[in-house]
Amino acid sequence: MNDSRPIFPELQNDRLLRAARGEFVDRVPVWMMRQAGRYLPEYRKAREGHSFFETCRNPELVSEITIQPVRRFPIDAAIIFSDILVVPLAMGMQVDMIAGKGPVLPEPLSTPADLDRLVMPDVKDELGYVFRAIEKTRRDLNGRVPLIGFSGAPWTLMCYMVEGAGSKSFSKPRAWLYAEPQATDRLLEQLTDVIIEYLKGQIRAGAQYIQVFESWGGILGPEAFDRFEAPHLKRIATELKYAYPEIPLAVFPRGAHHALESLADSDYDVLSLDWTILPEEARTKAGLYVTLQGNLDPAVLYGPRDVIRENVRRMVQAFGTRRYIANLGHGMMSDHDPDKAQVFVEAVREFTSELQLSSSH
Amino acid sequence: MNDSRPIFPELQNDRLLRAARGEFVDRVPVWMMRQAGRYLPEYRKAREGHSFFETCRNPELVSEITIQPVRRFPIDAAIIFSDILVVPLAMGMQVDMIAGKGPVLPEPLSTPADLDRLVMPDVKDELGYVFRAIEKTRRDLNGRVPLIGFSGAPWTLMCYMVEGAGSKSFSKPRAWLYAEPQATDRLLEQLTDVIIEYLKGQIRAGAQYIQVFESWGGILGPEAFDRFEAPHLKRIATELKYAYPEIPLAVFPRGAHHALESLADSDYDVLSLDWTILPEEARTKAGLYVTLQGNLDPAVLYGPRDVIRENVRRMVQAFGTRRYIANLGHGMMSDHDPDKAQVFVEAVREFTSELQLSSSH
Repeated sequence: MNDSRPIFPELQNDRLLRAARGEFVDRVPVWMMRQAGRYLPEYRKAREGHSFFETCRNPELVSEITIQPVRRFPIDAAIIFSDILVVPLAMGMQVDMIAGKGPVLPEPLSTPADLDRLVMPDVKDELGYVFRAIEKTRRDLNGRVPLIGFSGAPWTLMCYMVEGAGSKSFSKPRAWLYAEPQATDRLLEQLTDVIIEYLKGQIRAGAQYIQVFESWGGILGPEAFDRFEAPHLKRIATELKYAYPEIPLAVFPRGAHHALESLADSDYDVLSLDWTILPEEARTKAGLYVTLQGNLDPAVLYGPRDVIRENVRRMVQAFGTRRYIANLGHGMMSDHDPDKAQVFVEAVREFTSELQLSSSH
Repeated sequence: MNDSRPIFPELQNDRLLRAARGEFVDRVPVWMMRQAGRYLPEYRKAREGHSFFETCRNPELVSEITIQPVRRFPIDAAIIFSDILVVPLAMGMQVDMIAGKGPVLPEPLSTPADLDRLVMPDVKDELGYVFRAIEKTRRDLNGRVPLIGFSGAPWTLMCYMVEGAGSKSFSKPRAWLYAEPQATDRLLEQLTDVIIEYLKGQIRAGAQYIQVFESWGGILGPEAFDRFEAPHLKRIATELKYAYPEIPLAVFPRGAHHALESLADSDYDVLSLDWTILPEEARTKAGLYVTLQGNLDPAVLYGPRDVIRENVRRMVQAFGTRRYIANLGHGMMSDHDPDKAQVFVEAVREFTSELQLSSSH
């Protein structure tokens, strides 16, 4: 594998990277999970006539969609447009994106014997389209803001691969934990191997910050999380940090508040928080030596301007301005009004600048 | 309203009530959320030819289904067979139970103006069928174990009434919090009024223990929970405790771990825990003067006998034997094997008896 990395335009805005490393920033960086998406009319236009995964495979479209929110909002990062299910796809599973329903995997892993159907992909072949899209997008960004790469975490990918679709309870993968612990270990380890290679490839292609999405961490009990998933989640960070020490690593353990203490004591630089934990409690659990990212309830953006501003003000006051990256506590929703995202971003800039000023006096 | 209460056979097993009040018990009581349900072949047989709500309206069927798990397992309580959505039904909303999909409310509350469609029911008329079923079941139980009554909590009922169905995100009711706070207050208050009357009616009919299910508490952020829901949830307990001080009150704030401290300091006697919190952490948050109920991951029952026993052993050792009621951390699932429920119940009895013995030495 050719490990030479492309040369890109110089980065003009490094607030995100500095905040992740705990360095001084002139104001708190802000971005939004799922900031590139269906709530933007320009996204819907760009997607016209292209299926979801066709879009993911087209570097021009990915670059356009990834950069759309950067044009519209004064945000401090772009996040590559893709989906966590490209990994199961690369491992030989069929994944269909059904409009209005979400992902469906028509042939899920029903028994441990089904693990033999999975292939260990050469990520450069099977996921090269993501790497090409990252390289193209990074060039097109022209150093304006850093580009975030991402992957689903092993357990979260296993949830879809075993359940076969999104679910409120994910009872099938949860059953594997107790009925098929060896197969669970094997699957999670195999996923971890692929995820590490996949994220290394993203970094080589130009990703400047990595986020691992543990979207279904919250349905694991604390003991199951520690026993089955935490070692893999931590190994991802350790191996990436060893290979690329300069790249900040974030993890979003949605709902798994019990894991914050242990994840703070790992090679992740940033803990991305969902909206169901108070900033003060997260800081107490995480300690002082990790950056926190989050965590406004996206539903606040359904409210009027003054409600959004008041909620943002309380949030940034609680988090403070050091080791903090402002974000939502989950993704933008498809029926959100883009103008409300603007109110959110501007309120973060306004209130964190005020805080910076008052703390420097 | 005639407030004279029926006279029932003397209670033979009061472990549940004693544990809820913090009194000494010879062994830890145990029951299971959704212990009467589809995973039992005798339930499926009893339901044959009867729609869901038709079953709820038939006191003979309700009594039979409620008592089925008491016949099968050495459990310490029965819980009346019904559904939380009987309350929206009584308030004039249509609720359809769709097999394999769950509840659908085809005309949800889309705007605040829709609140005018809701009626303030005379619970004795509209929910009298539940009271008659409770009275019949209590008689048929013949004092064997106490009978638990229940209701959904206001926010959890609002979730279904505004969303119109179950959901992973419940974005519509969450939008109301910020876009329609006055209408949210009005709806939650109206629901609270109905719930209080409904639960009082259940107690008068013979319910000996009340559980309030806040199944969707975990999608509210801590501030939203405290601002919108906590006052109503606490008022339910306060008014019931004032009217019927002898009836233990439990609340199941699923996922809302941030609320445990505040709910421990209310008129609820019992906090029912989901499986995503460690017993030690729950006890630290809740303090010593409230009974904890829970919290085995129901998915453990998909595992083999020794895995179930090992998980139960760890759970009861962590909770201890005082102020503790053993249960699952969520309901039985329809594809569970009844024999595994038996293993769970017997393991609780065995291990908590051992603990009792060792602590009395």
